[in-house]
Amino acid sequence: MKATIRALARVVKDASPQLAATSSAQRDQALHEIAEALLRAQTEIIAANRQDLEAARAAAMSSAMLDRLALDERRVTAMASAVRELIALPDPLGGLDAMWVRPNGLRVGRRRIPLGVIAIIYEARPNVTSDAAALCIKSGNGVILKGGKEAFASNRAIVAAMREGLAKAGLPESAMAFIDSTQREATQALLELDELVDVVIPRGGEGLIRFVAEHARMPVIKHYKGVCHVFVEASAQPEMVESIALNAKCQRPSVCNAMECLLVDAAWPAAELQRVVKALLARGVRIHACPKSLARLEPNDALVPAVEDDWGCEYLAMEMALKTVENLDEAMQHIQRFGSQHTDAIITERYALAERFLAEVDSSTVLVNASTRFADGGELGLGAEMGISTSKLHAFGPMGLRELTTTKFVVYGSGQVRS
Amino acid sequence: MKATIRALARVVKDASPQLAATSSAQRDQALHEIAEALLRAQTEIIAANRQDLEAARAAAMSSAMLDRLALDERRVTAMASAVRELIALPDPLGGLDAMWVRPNGLRVGRRRIPLGVIAIIYEARPNVTSDAAALCIKSGNGVILKGGKEAFASNRAIVAAMREGLAKAGLPESAMAFIDSTQREATQALLELDELVDVVIPRGGEGLIRFVAEHARMPVIKHYKGVCHVFVEASAQPEMVESIALNAKCQRPSVCNAMECLLVDAAWPAAELQRVVKALLARGVRIHACPKSLARLEPNDALVPAVEDDWGCEYLAMEMALKTVENLDEAMQHIQRFGSQHTDAIITERYALAERFLAEVDSSTVLVNASTRFADGGELGLGAEMGISTSKLHAFGPMGLRELTTTKFVVYGSGQVRS
Repeated sequence: MKATIRALARVVKDASPQLAATSSAQRDQALHEIAEALLRAQTEIIAANRQDLEAARAAAMSSAMLDRLALDERRVTAMASAVRELIALPDPLGGLDAMWVRPNGLRVGRRRIPLGVIAIIYEARPNVTSDAAALCIKSGNGVILKGGKEAFASNRAIVAAMREGLAKAGLPESAMAFIDSTQREATQALLELDELVDVVIPRGGEGLIRFVAEHARMPVIKHYKGVCHVFVEASAQPEMVESIALNAKCQRPSVCNAMECLLVDAAWPAAELQRVVKALLARGVRIHACPKSLARLEPNDALVPAVEDDWGCEYLAMEMALKTVENLDEAMQHIQRFGSQHTDAIITERYALAERFLAEVDSSTVLVNASTRFADGGELGLGAEMGISTSKLHAFGPMGLRELTTTKFVVYGSGQVRS
Repeated sequence: MKATIRALARVVKDASPQLAATSSAQRDQALHEIAEALLRAQTEIIAANRQDLEAARAAAMSSAMLDRLALDERRVTAMASAVRELIALPDPLGGLDAMWVRPNGLRVGRRRIPLGVIAIIYEARPNVTSDAAALCIKSGNGVILKGGKEAFASNRAIVAAMREGLAKAGLPESAMAFIDSTQREATQALLELDELVDVVIPRGGEGLIRFVAEHARMPVIKHYKGVCHVFVEASAQPEMVESIALNAKCQRPSVCNAMECLLVDAAWPAAELQRVVKALLARGVRIHACPKSLARLEPNDALVPAVEDDWGCEYLAMEMALKTVENLDEAMQHIQRFGSQHTDAIITERYALAERFLAEVDSSTVLVNASTRFADGGELGLGAEMGISTSKLHAFGPMGLRELTTTKFVVYGSGQVRS
């Protein structure tokens, strides 16, 4: 197993300089061919997906999970469209971030280059395969994909089509590899190859991420959970609070940038709080509230006393925590203690408090008077998104194409030596 | 042991937000106080160093190593001066790398913030303690230091003085910690604390770096070896070749950006090659040459046939490899196979070849017509240097203050919700 995985990674590593040396036109042509190849292979992909679905049903997978796994014509077309959308984005490679001149006349620049080889270890949804691999190709990186066993046949069919597209565009198909095994030992073998793999990105549940962090010898960009808070400061405008709270909680409760806890300043009017809570309850949200909040609100069956585990809980459902705090400091202490350094927002009319929140809350995205749902590569203007990093190194928050690159120093001299 | 290390890291983590919230004036004041404290503690530091030296002599440490370990008044003063020099550098924190406006009016910026807590695991030279810790303070990071056992008493005395300086400036002295143990188990315990330590930077030999990479659960910024090449292309100017080759090899042969291998195009005049080799031999350099090179050169006792291990060898001494290649492609293939992705240079008058070398050589610093010795944070204009990263993630090449920071997204809204 170890030897097989090493050989596979070696092939990708060897192909990666060729990919890095391509022009943006060549890489965009490859994306076009990959999208075409996915559409051509639709029948095979859907047939492979059917095998996965049958195995999943036999294993009594939940209907929500089955839905995430299932592919049909519409979904394959959406995968191809997502690949095609990358063509319009600017090339992240080759440009200089900055260039300056030293006193001795050396001109020094930081040039954007690919990371090299990116390993992506993920679970469940098969569209991650095409999304992630296409981002790697656009940014000139070799990619090694290790999907979850639930989507094994689907992923294999998707990668086969994508490699065909790469080859058709004249790029090395060996720059994209799929680990043809569902065993954890395969993952473990991959994670030891720090001389062949430059970074590993795990996408999935906490168990997977912890396993990767423990075993990887190369850098890991983690995507942990999102326990997002909205703090309603005393001066907050009631209409704004209502629309942001409803949007942050209800627009798509299953994602990591959905609000999980509403913190409300004790000085914010009780009548307004009642109105917002009523609106949330009317949408079907179950609210776990602290005693102070409960004392200010009319009783309701879906308004229940919070227990200790509700603070810091990632519900990912129509469920949330509610806590009354005395001031900004208590709100920020709560976020520091129970948040996940993902995304937190304040609603306020006060300039100084807004600035303090932005400066002091140690999360990858901090917002004033806006929904937490904007913590997303597309929404923030990065074009496309590989995921949301909760590690601080290299990338913190939504990762776009630029985060799949690094810089090297290029130095233009005219015979300089060091004295 | 595990519990002790965890408690120590927890204290640093808890102090780090306070450090991150300081103004640049406060951090600069702290650097001033730290420099003063180092000078005041001179006697204690030198006395502690004497203990280390005695133990090292008893263990029969080499005289070169003893020299690196030894501290006297002049060296402690130099340590204090190095700390003071950071004061003049611009604050890496708080600024926005960029800010843009989304179609819905959201203003999105990337704000520079500290990484959090940096662990530095290093060997031998005690000045690394003050240099590295001061860089962390300037960049608002908590720091955990784990030095080598050879400099244990010296490092402990240096950290004690620096903490006193921190406290005198009103900053939390708990933001700087020293691991009061020389055991590997202490390092191992530290490397498990990925929720308390944001990044670990090992500085030392290959054994240490490999140990850290294998055991760390948090990101590691590696500083591997430097096997630097200079390629003399057929059009290279002879005088430039001579001055760059002598500078790159002889100015300071013991450092990672010294040249270890000279690659010479077969079309470059043999007479010129003879002149450069003579100059190197005259300086006392021992040259391991390939058969083609030997055939072009007059015999000399210090000009010996290269063996396979000479390619990719990091001599760190007045010793080097010499190889004749047919063209740029062969030179780049050699660098890819035997280089260490650290620093490589080309000497050429040809525009297209210079550009190809800069684009295609996958090293953290690539130079045209300049000495490899410029691969250094100070020389490239970064101000100060934490080391030279040979990992691609986060930082590749010389690391300055900016590489000890990351960015978070700050979003200024006016009530926006996601549709």
